[in-house]
Amino acid sequence: MFEEYTNGNLPNLKEMKAKNYDNIDASQEPDVHGIAVLTSGGDAPGMNATIRAIIRAGINSGYKMMGVTRGYHGLWKGEIKELGSRDVSETLQRGGTFLMTARSKSFETPEGVLQGAKMCQVFGVDCMVVVGGDGSFRGARDLARIGIPVIGIPGTIDNDVACTEYTIGFDTAMNTAMEAIDKLRDTASSHERCSVIEVMGRHAGYIALNVGIATGAEIILLPEQPWDINEVVRTILACRNKGKRHYIVIVAEGAGSATEIAKQIEEATEIESRPTILGHLQRGGSPTLRDRTMASLMGVHAIECIKNKKMNRLVVYKNGEITDVDIEEGLSLQKTISMEDLERSKLLT
Amino acid sequence: MFEEYTNGNLPNLKEMKAKNYDNIDASQEPDVHGIAVLTSGGDAPGMNATIRAIIRAGINSGYKMMGVTRGYHGLWKGEIKELGSRDVSETLQRGGTFLMTARSKSFETPEGVLQGAKMCQVFGVDCMVVVGGDGSFRGARDLARIGIPVIGIPGTIDNDVACTEYTIGFDTAMNTAMEAIDKLRDTASSHERCSVIEVMGRHAGYIALNVGIATGAEIILLPEQPWDINEVVRTILACRNKGKRHYIVIVAEGAGSATEIAKQIEEATEIESRPTILGHLQRGGSPTLRDRTMASLMGVHAIECIKNKKMNRLVVYKNGEITDVDIEEGLSLQKTISMEDLERSKLLT
Amino acid sequence: MFEEYTNGNLPNLKEMKAKNYDNIDASQEPDVHGIAVLTSGGDAPGMNATIRAIIRAGINSGYKMMGVTRGYHGLWKGEIKELGSRDVSETLQRGGTFLMTARSKSFETPEGVLQGAKMCQVFGVDCMVVVGGDGSFRGARDLARIGIPVIGIPGTIDNDVACTEYTIGFDTAMNTAMEAIDKLRDTASSHERCSVIEVMGRHAGYIALNVGIATGAEIILLPEQPWDINEVVRTILACRNKGKRHYIVIVAEGAGSATEIAKQIEEATEIESRPTILGHLQRGGSPTLRDRTMASLMGVHAIECIKNKKMNRLVVYKNGEITDVDIEEGLSLQKTISMEDLERSKLLT
Amino acid sequence: MFEEYTNGNLPNLKEMKAKNYDNIDASQEPDVHGIAVLTSGGDAPGMNATIRAIIRAGINSGYKMMGVTRGYHGLWKGEIKELGSRDVSETLQRGGTFLMTARSKSFETPEGVLQGAKMCQVFGVDCMVVVGGDGSFRGARDLARIGIPVIGIPGTIDNDVACTEYTIGFDTAMNTAMEAIDKLRDTASSHERCSVIEVMGRHAGYIALNVGIATGAEIILLPEQPWDINEVVRTILACRNKGKRHYIVIVAEGAGSATEIAKQIEEATEIESRPTILGHLQRGGSPTLRDRTMASLMGVHAIECIKNKKMNRLVVYKNGEITDVDIEEGLSLQKTISMEDLERSKLLT
Repeated sequence: MFEEYTNGNLPNLKEMKAKNYDNIDASQEPDVHGIAVLTSGGDAPGMNATIRAIIRAGINSGYKMMGVTRGYHGLWKGEIKELGSRDVSETLQRGGTFLMTARSKSFETPEGVLQGAKMCQVFGVDCMVVVGGDGSFRGARDLARIGIPVIGIPGTIDNDVACTEYTIGFDTAMNTAMEAIDKLRDTASSHERCSVIEVMGRHAGYIALNVGIATGAEIILLPEQPWDINEVVRTILACRNKGKRHYIVIVAEGAGSATEIAKQIEEATEIESRPTILGHLQRGGSPTLRDRTMASLMGVHAIECIKNKKMNRLVVYKNGEITDVDIEEGLSLQKTISMEDLERSKLLT
Repeated sequence: MFEEYTNGNLPNLKEMKAKNYDNIDASQEPDVHGIAVLTSGGDAPGMNATIRAIIRAGINSGYKMMGVTRGYHGLWKGEIKELGSRDVSETLQRGGTFLMTARSKSFETPEGVLQGAKMCQVFGVDCMVVVGGDGSFRGARDLARIGIPVIGIPGTIDNDVACTEYTIGFDTAMNTAMEAIDKLRDTASSHERCSVIEVMGRHAGYIALNVGIATGAEIILLPEQPWDINEVVRTILACRNKGKRHYIVIVAEGAGSATEIAKQIEEATEIESRPTILGHLQRGGSPTLRDRTMASLMGVHAIECIKNKKMNRLVVYKNGEITDVDIEEGLSLQKTISMEDLERSKLLT
Repeated sequence: MFEEYTNGNLPNLKEMKAKNYDNIDASQEPDVHGIAVLTSGGDAPGMNATIRAIIRAGINSGYKMMGVTRGYHGLWKGEIKELGSRDVSETLQRGGTFLMTARSKSFETPEGVLQGAKMCQVFGVDCMVVVGGDGSFRGARDLARIGIPVIGIPGTIDNDVACTEYTIGFDTAMNTAMEAIDKLRDTASSHERCSVIEVMGRHAGYIALNVGIATGAEIILLPEQPWDINEVVRTILACRNKGKRHYIVIVAEGAGSATEIAKQIEEATEIESRPTILGHLQRGGSPTLRDRTMASLMGVHAIECIKNKKMNRLVVYKNGEITDVDIEEGLSLQKTISMEDLERSKLLT
Repeated sequence: MFEEYTNGNLPNLKEMKAKNYDNIDASQEPDVHGIAVLTSGGDAPGMNATIRAIIRAGINSGYKMMGVTRGYHGLWKGEIKELGSRDVSETLQRGGTFLMTARSKSFETPEGVLQGAKMCQVFGVDCMVVVGGDGSFRGARDLARIGIPVIGIPGTIDNDVACTEYTIGFDTAMNTAMEAIDKLRDTASSHERCSVIEVMGRHAGYIALNVGIATGAEIILLPEQPWDINEVVRTILACRNKGKRHYIVIVAEGAGSATEIAKQIEEATEIESRPTILGHLQRGGSPTLRDRTMASLMGVHAIECIKNKKMNRLVVYKNGEITDVDIEEGLSLQKTISMEDLERSKLLT
């Protein structure tokens, strides 16, 4: 399908779109023999479990399975090798991704996409399974548009992929943050302090909201909702007047700086306030049960899609079950967060 | 509504049904001032978080909140006291239930139910919130039938309540089992053994199925599915022939005895096999994030039902969100487990 | 003994020393009936377990036991109350200190010390048990010098008390840091990054050294040992040349800034480098087995000292067993860290 | 030294002893070039960290390092291969032993020992480092007696090696047991039950004693101390009379059967009593900080012994520091447990 470009005649994506490559007819897909998997974007706990599920379900379904190292960057460089069933032994419970991941600017150009597609051809990759977030799926969609069938699986700690209610890594990241905050509460309580904790989430407050509810935070600040330092101060003082002796403030990184907020609270209330930035430790750790089962079943689902010749799909969790949506459709959605749950959290302090 | 019985004229439940007490018209409910909460049946991690959410959301909504100790047994004995906002401080992260729980045979009789209803009247309990499983909800339904409005919240580690996709405690119990099995795998691997692990689930295999997938078990045995020891042995030998050096067998307690199965495997394969019965430790521990958020939001939902005069409801998790169903309807459903997921797990070894 | 000062005639400590109050003769101590316990300085996991052990061993030995809230600040204000055996139920496994702790400048003056001593007299405190670090022990020594018998128990996460090989909280803090770094390694490995982690220890590198060994850190930077950024860079490049793909640098807070070091490494090596400041979360959490047993047995030892009329002692861990030293002698020692172990750690990369 | 036997002339050990092979003169040892490591007996967390430390410290000191799989059984079969620095990457934090372990009856005969010694010669093993318990050290001593220099490192969860105060794996096993019992307490408390927990320790009560103190057990039963069921019952009833609502009984496996004891308690007191056998899960899990640092520094110490031509030594932890003793002397000692600490534990309930 993209042979016309493989002799050095590089198209741009607009031109390819004009030729309707974005409406790939799945019924015309060539038979799939070789499947590769790559992980892309920020790593997330459960990525290894996802790779393992794809590789094993693929092998047990008769495919030749391959792994790409370092995400799209590695694809572009041809870092592709066959993986057997034993190669993914003892990976289910490991954090991170043994295929490694990277951000590749070069892949965002038509030349980069085409280079990736060529490598698929060279290595006999008839379908590429991509584990990552929206950015990674856009890369997959670009591959699909020039004829490499793809399947996407949502793997990112932020849960910020619109077409799915769950992304692999989200549960582990939240439990990691929660356990850290449980510890911070011990010391905040001993010293009668206010603890201001910055959790991951540059654009999405899912971690902050859920972790805030799970740790009984007095205040939860999200990027999706404007907030006012005066109301933060009022709430803390109201809690003190109710007899509380320590205070937990959760702030998503996109909603403000824990260091700055702690300073403002201390100045306004004279309650000793300490910031903590949880940072990258939320990315690591052995995946929780939820992430391991979700990774395992989504991985199997990806192979089921390929077996059923349903290509260019995103595996998603929707209404309590694992299913799939068209990749273009999935990428066009907008995600919203439940402001009702934020209001409900205020009834719990 | 049941005043006619409070002077010692005890009816039986059949007679009460004849008088149509089982079709309580919510619009005729008296205004609710006092609400009590009790936990019943086997304890589950997150019960404390549920109590906390109910008490705080209730107080913040203007109700007088009470706690009943020792479940229906305590209700029957009048072990009811007011709980304030500070009384549930530092309970969110604690395992178990500080209200304690018990099994009460006496409550299953009409006299017992009526005695409970009387105690509600004596203490000004206008609505009773019951946290537990199906058995506990049947007790609640009996109270509802003689005029005490009730709300049920599913709290049991087994996830065996038909009307809801999730019960509080399930996630923690599974993570506890999973972490124990991760450790057992270390030693099974060092000694090249087969480890046969019995997890909770007398009638339902939800824990076994999910934990089996999450730990990469070679074999998962459920009470819902007949199994054959010869096939177990064949699978283990097939895994050995593929190059595996250790084997994990997960058996729900209702599906067989780990001790017996380990013996049979060792006899048939000469692979050293060791049984472990995880038992009650699956009931304890600080709740996971999922159980804490579910407990918190289900607790708030219970109070929202009461505010909206929706009585005799079970709070449930359905299609990815928290909602509620009529208690009689909820109790009439039958739960099934996904045999597809069991088949999928076989693709992962 | 200090009655002459209780009518408002405040001495200064120098004057008291001249009167030889610092050579208290234990054989002249009045019989002890009431014992109080306070926690002081930074909180540490296991402080609750220590309080519990003191209170229970004291009650079971026939004493009246009391607790002082907010450390010396609370003593000064008379925040003292009797504690029974049930008051310390369920505290063994809790992080922090339920008696709370505070830093009190006012106590450092002779007036403050005398005010504290008066409160002891008012509440019938015949001996004060102080759980904390060197600063807290100096406060205890001041009390001892004007006639209030004291016992000190080392409780601080930093292990920086010279007279003892172990301080309560040290093991938990190190395990907390280690578990966080295990997670950071997952993500450093997935992205092939350098992770620079700042752990607690303003003046002492015990946490950094042990945690560095336990996490396989490529580089460990201690406050006790000058270091050179060029050598740090050379070591990382040498590791890269050996085939390593990720790098862990542990820096005690007193040895440098993780943020600054990460920047320098990235600039010099072009290896992506990320700082993490673990901060206060190292103070919290349920104590490990070592901290719980040490807390329990040191608490019992404190009561054994009092029973044997050995006053003004510090309970210490020395040569593998719990024993005690004179408080003045204990405070005069200087602690050193093992530079041999730092050298040994370099053999492990 | 044993060349006379390598042509098929098999001696028995008695004969070898007569020739004074058990008094090897270290000054006559040949230069060491190749060192092998094996793990033997029951596996313990931290064995991997020990192997890693030996291999890396050995390589960094200029030796050729080898690993033997399956303990003495593998030695006998010649399962020996060179290990490089990268081969032990990512093992520090893993439970179990990647070299695997086994029990080998055949090695207990003179023929077996000689066969092992031959294999050392064949593969160029000039010194064998053995990680295990007393049984494993006796195997090492037998090797030493016929001329293969050995170093032993104590690795067993039971801490039952007389010449050392600490064995690698002990701390992790105890923390694992403690965390399980913390969970069991949650549910015992919710149901007002007695929980009887069997921990590892067939002949030694170290785990039971320390875990009992760390979990606040009402009763601790050790193999080293006879006990009486009537006193157990009296203690539980006394605790009930003091107001306790749940009870923890810890029993070392060598001291009795949890199932039987639970039955007897329930019969005598009518308090619902539940047994739990923690079993093999105490063997697994990522090692704690203490086990990782002890493993790392003991591993380095083993290599330091070899560098200093101190052969046939056991690495031990004594009076708070890592040192070494002669293997024959070490094996001749008897270990005792502190009955004072058992008495102290009774002051804490």
